[in-house]
Amino acid sequence: MRYIEYDYADKLLNRSKYYVKDAKSNIRKWNLVFGNNNPIDVEIGPGRGAFIIEMAKENPDRNFVGIELYPSQLVPCVNELNDLDLPNLRLIVGDAIDIDDYFFKEIDTIYINFPDPWPNKTNTNRRLTHERFLQKYDKIYKKNKHLILKTDNKIFFAFSLESLSEYWYSFKRVSLDLHNDERNIKSVMTNYENEYSKTDNRPIYYLEAEYK
Amino acid sequence: MRYIEYDYADKLLNRSKYYVKDAKSNIRKWNLVFGNNNPIDVEIGPGRGAFIIEMAKENPDRNFVGIELYPSQLVPCVNELNDLDLPNLRLIVGDAIDIDDYFFKEIDTIYINFPDPWPNKTNTNRRLTHERFLQKYDKIYKKNKHLILKTDNKIFFAFSLESLSEYWYSFKRVSLDLHNDERNIKSVMTNYENEYSKTDNRPIYYLEAEYK
Repeated sequence: MRYIEYDYADKLLNRSKYYVKDAKSNIRKWNLVFGNNNPIDVEIGPGRGAFIIEMAKENPDRNFVGIELYPSQLVPCVNELNDLDLPNLRLIVGDAIDIDDYFFKEIDTIYINFPDPWPNKTNTNRRLTHERFLQKYDKIYKKNKHLILKTDNKIFFAFSLESLSEYWYSFKRVSLDLHNDERNIKSVMTNYENEYSKTDNRPIYYLEAEYK
Repeated sequence: MRYIEYDYADKLLNRSKYYVKDAKSNIRKWNLVFGNNNPIDVEIGPGRGAFIIEMAKENPDRNFVGIELYPSQLVPCVNELNDLDLPNLRLIVGDAIDIDDYFFKEIDTIYINFPDPWPNKTNTNRRLTHERFLQKYDKIYKKNKHLILKTDNKIFFAFSLESLSEYWYSFKRVSLDLHNDERNIKSVMTNYENEYSKTDNRPIYYLEAEYK
């Protein structure tokens, strides 16, 4: 069952102009993939793609790469993209812990939206803001470190504030209730966020971290 | 009316062994006031005193100074203290922005509990975690910077995360819901917190910040 699902997803992805198959071979030359020198942002775990597609539409002067763990997770995103013309967007399949196999000193901003929070204490090293990942991110930033994160998970957010600050990031903007923030922080909605915010009033946490 | 109230508070404070009248004259020599070289912690705005009194009881090997803006705010605290024997606690009247007139390189930890959040954008520089205050705190720490903060105000907490991290503090512990945190963070309750938590389920935000 699993195999068939993957096989189908693989075929679908390989037919899409948005999918980059041998992504690792593009390390250090993503500007050639996009055919320009615009800043390149990465979304880790774009899922169904609402965020990265909208970002690519709104920011034609920036490039976006979404990295997703399994091909099947990208199927809805690829299906939607096939009707669109967004030369500044690409999707790849890979594990975030190997992100430095895909990029080297070429990324402007890393977006992490509603990742698996791994709330169990024994799994903190799987959280995408664990030092183990931050060390990898260091290798892919072009110049300044710049990471933008959204989550509805308290434990993961508190952990991220600790981990990022201890790794010398500082916080340009923090919101403890993104959708009701007086500052009207502009942040494109993800699929999950769109659905979730209709039915649930729990706050969404947001941070923009940087290190210059 | 105001004058009488103050006059009464002044008299009451002056009769208390916990109150230090000419507090500025003790700068650089608080160890003499306490008669020992134990670490000295400051609470800014102890109010009715539940926090600082309990801290002094639980930690006889540390000294505590509470700094409050108006004498009248200390009346309930002084009344309660008069029945207790806590040689490691003192109260002073002063403005936090002048805190470096009272202490110089002699403070271990600064506690800030439920301060006025000054939620209005035009008053951010009055918030106790504004850079204007952080610069003053720098002058009073004995060695490492160590600040512990609790609030129920989202805007103030988010601001503090930004301001402290941009001032190079890092966060050892952050909680977005102190009373329901899986880690069971031990934090003595303030008067406000005691009352508030009985009637309101809004979260209490907590952070421990340091800079070594």
